[in-house]
Amino acid sequence: MPDASRRNEQSRRAILDAALGLLAGTGYAKLTIEAIAARAGVGKQTIYRWWPGKGAVILDALAENATAVTLPDTGDIEADLREVVRATVAEFADPRQSATTRALTAETLADDALGDQVRDRLLRPQLVAVRDRLDKAQRAGQIRDGADLDHAVELIFGPIFHRWLLRTGPLTRRYADGLVDHVLAALR
Amino acid sequence: MPDASRRNEQSRRAILDAALGLLAGTGYAKLTIEAIAARAGVGKQTIYRWWPGKGAVILDALAENATAVTLPDTGDIEADLREVVRATVAEFADPRQSATTRALTAETLADDALGDQVRDRLLRPQLVAVRDRLDKAQRAGQIRDGADLDHAVELIFGPIFHRWLLRTGPLTRRYADGLVDHVLAALR
Repeated sequence: MPDASRRNEQSRRAILDAALGLLAGTGYAKLTIEAIAARAGVGKQTIYRWWPGKGAVILDALAENATAVTLPDTGDIEADLREVVRATVAEFADPRQSATTRALTAETLADDALGDQVRDRLLRPQLVAVRDRLDKAQRAGQIRDGADLDHAVELIFGPIFHRWLLRTGPLTRRYADGLVDHVLAALR
Repeated sequence: MPDASRRNEQSRRAILDAALGLLAGTGYAKLTIEAIAARAGVGKQTIYRWWPGKGAVILDALAENATAVTLPDTGDIEADLREVVRATVAEFADPRQSATTRALTAETLADDALGDQVRDRLLRPQLVAVRDRLDKAQRAGQIRDGADLDHAVELIFGPIFHRWLLRTGPLTRRYADGLVDHVLAALR
């Protein structure tokens, strides 16, 4: 890698790391391009050369972070689903992560293009990973042949999202386990 | 009812009717208090005497409209759920209703108090009505004793809401029927 490319890549990573750090520290609402630039040790113009604005930087930072997530595969679909659902519920229950996701969700409701990006880059990889794990379980006979796996994925994430966004009930481990029990009853 | 009360009630209904009419005509984003007042034949100050702003008027208008909805009860939980889910999916698929719900949802993400009102006055009555219908079906032996009805309600509405908000798939009658099949598999 030539020096200029390496420096660019270092700046890009520094910017995304700074964005994630500020997101965790001050939260989405108060985060500015100026603060990201200062923390990353680059000029504002460097950020604006690569991204149109704050939402796009945060989206890239979250998307690169998200690809590191891998799904558990012990061979036991019940154990694996329980782990995934508990972790997902815990993420939505975390005040900081919840605030970021609420802010991003509000922006996607006002901006269809950003909504498509968030869906395709942040959400879809997780949904596809769970669908693939369910597909493997179906081929192993742990899920009935008639079960539709697109419905299955939405039976898992839809209720969590609904409960989180509308604040209709607690997001606890007990809730997560109850949800898994009901989803498995639909799929077995 | 004394004349003043009757006139107040007539004005209140005229304002809510005007709000619903404008919502259907110009949509939530372009709707103004001025336009509601003009259409209802009242002064702006009458509206501001009773409501703090546009969101509150729309919420009242939608909430009064929503209470007129009654749940089907043929005695057959499968037939009744199918009707409810088809109707709900059709509402979310309707561009005008979807735009209103997206605008209101975006506002609730930025305003917790409005979010609580929307949940308790628009959403909760529907969820409770479905839960009551499921409870009756459970007592009639059409739903297994171990099924948790709060989970059941969220298994129905969560996936629809998730698919609608994140635009992950089509909102068709075929989708509605598939969802009902999977939910019933979890509950029987």
